[in-house]
Amino acid sequence: MSNPNLRMSLSCPMPKLDFDIITLGHGSGGLLTNQLLDKVILDVLQNPILDKRHDGAFLEMNGPMAFTTDSFVISPIFFPGGNIGDLAIHGTVNDLAMSGATPQYISLAFIIEEGLNMEELWEILHSIKHATQQAGVKVVTGDTKVVERGKGDKIFINTSGIGAIHPKAKIDATRIQKGDKVILSGPIATHGIAIMSQREGLQFGTSLTSDSQPLNAATLALIEEFDEHIKFFRDPTRGGVASSLNEVASSQKIGIDLKGHKIPMLDEVRGGCELLGLDPLYVANEGVFIAIVAGSKGEEVEDFLKNIDGFEQASLVGEVVEEHPSQVILHSGIGGKRVVHMLVGEQLPRIC
Amino acid sequence: MSNPNLRMSLSCPMPKLDFDIITLGHGSGGLLTNQLLDKVILDVLQNPILDKRHDGAFLEMNGPMAFTTDSFVISPIFFPGGNIGDLAIHGTVNDLAMSGATPQYISLAFIIEEGLNMEELWEILHSIKHATQQAGVKVVTGDTKVVERGKGDKIFINTSGIGAIHPKAKIDATRIQKGDKVILSGPIATHGIAIMSQREGLQFGTSLTSDSQPLNAATLALIEEFDEHIKFFRDPTRGGVASSLNEVASSQKIGIDLKGHKIPMLDEVRGGCELLGLDPLYVANEGVFIAIVAGSKGEEVEDFLKNIDGFEQASLVGEVVEEHPSQVILHSGIGGKRVVHMLVGEQLPRIC
Repeated sequence: MSNPNLRMSLSCPMPKLDFDIITLGHGSGGLLTNQLLDKVILDVLQNPILDKRHDGAFLEMNGPMAFTTDSFVISPIFFPGGNIGDLAIHGTVNDLAMSGATPQYISLAFIIEEGLNMEELWEILHSIKHATQQAGVKVVTGDTKVVERGKGDKIFINTSGIGAIHPKAKIDATRIQKGDKVILSGPIATHGIAIMSQREGLQFGTSLTSDSQPLNAATLALIEEFDEHIKFFRDPTRGGVASSLNEVASSQKIGIDLKGHKIPMLDEVRGGCELLGLDPLYVANEGVFIAIVAGSKGEEVEDFLKNIDGFEQASLVGEVVEEHPSQVILHSGIGGKRVVHMLVGEQLPRIC
Repeated sequence: MSNPNLRMSLSCPMPKLDFDIITLGHGSGGLLTNQLLDKVILDVLQNPILDKRHDGAFLEMNGPMAFTTDSFVISPIFFPGGNIGDLAIHGTVNDLAMSGATPQYISLAFIIEEGLNMEELWEILHSIKHATQQAGVKVVTGDTKVVERGKGDKIFINTSGIGAIHPKAKIDATRIQKGDKVILSGPIATHGIAIMSQREGLQFGTSLTSDSQPLNAATLALIEEFDEHIKFFRDPTRGGVASSLNEVASSQKIGIDLKGHKIPMLDEVRGGCELLGLDPLYVANEGVFIAIVAGSKGEEVEDFLKNIDGFEQASLVGEVVEEHPSQVILHSGIGGKRVVHMLVGEQLPRIC
């Protein structure tokens, strides 16, 4: 394959098939659909629940749980550091994690444009498998539809997810109050700039890759350690950190003060944002979360996170204030300040 | 609107908005996304769980449950008897019903092509609302993505669903045995022929409409009445009755004998199939289910169903046999017989 981001899993060669592209017949519900399921999709993702192949997966849940959904339409489908498959797993795992839940079960629904190369689907499926193993979740039910050429764009993926709420979790934005601290789990804007650089054909000094990753190990460790002191999680995907903080500020009528010089960012990302004229606060992230925690625990949470592998750049970036309710204000290191609004318009379409 | 199937809910006029079509900005995660959510989507579908607007919905489930997903890509999005919105609710409600579950919670994810008319989205949302009320389910979480013109087709919808398994349900295909009876809940092939007639501009004597409807009231009534004697449910959507029966025959290594003259079908549908050269056994249904029940209860189940409003044409159409394992055989009324295979190729793309 000419696409450098398509890293075929050579350890798992694709079985010999009668077809090398997806056709409308693969969405018919008939013989071809069943061949695609038996020889490819279910074979890669197999587990006892999925193998039953009923219309619905049978699960056992007891107590409070979270339920979430996201569709993924990212373009290009293969990008530096990942593809639409692992992104779709990370995205839904992370939405569950942000709810204070342990991600457990995932549904997987494909809308495929006629003509998709089977090798691309194979690679996507293996990335999905790897991502589910990494996050400790199972794909338990699914669906495959096919649309005509020109009526889709290679592949769209919907993942919905279910997970039990951690017994110690008290994630509830209404509990946020004056003095609470805002923590970023790592450098921002990496995903968006990695995708944009690929689209625009930009070359950076080093190879910038998406930060797409599961966040559940870190959020559950925080809940385990700090229980009710953790009040709010959000992964700032579309719309970036600015939009996520504006959402919580306006829904809870709180003010948020941000210290600009504390916001972590990779040098290549900073350079990319300057080159592209983008404000990193609005650029999408896929492997970062915002935590709002009790004021007394801010520095402890920051230090705890920094000691988790992959979160060394976690940073306490701001505070909840009584002044300017519903507004987010960014303070620069040299005394200036500006209001950070919610994203207006669209900056980077199809970033996830 | 010129589309006769777009029946604007005049009782619920659309609020005054700054936009009359969907733009890429509505998928940005920023201001426009929030306006679309606040003024349109969440306003129409509001309920206490959805109103929390967290990344995940918080639910309480105790015991065995079913979890299911389906994407809907039907074309045209408005068709005689429904639209992609109510179809998406019925489809997922019915998959839960087929699992022996009480449908409860639904996730709703849109992939919208830039340029979709707001009036069409408004109508779809109201159909979704009506369908959820009819089936007794709540939309509790969702997602909206927008793709560029020419990269989608108006709107695709994914719905995933959750429901508690009925305590008396013992739906399990492995329990099917020789002598069990096969029952169809109503006339077949109506949905597919209604869609095809619209696509092909065919006129029937009467106005044929899709059979799309929620099936959970009927399946739960059967479980309540006949508990473990109900062994299997399946709604024969894509691929039709032929493909659904072939799937269960081959997975359970059972033979199925069908009596052709017992299979219920509307006259217009029969005529449409002849005109279009389609075998009704392969045409999609959206408001019909197959039940496989203990042999001793076959006629009782048929009679019970016939007494439920909307299922008057339920019919005992076949039997599980030891002969010809993994095969479905259709017996005509006049002594002929033929093997009914699974659908090969694609007959009616994008029927759901």
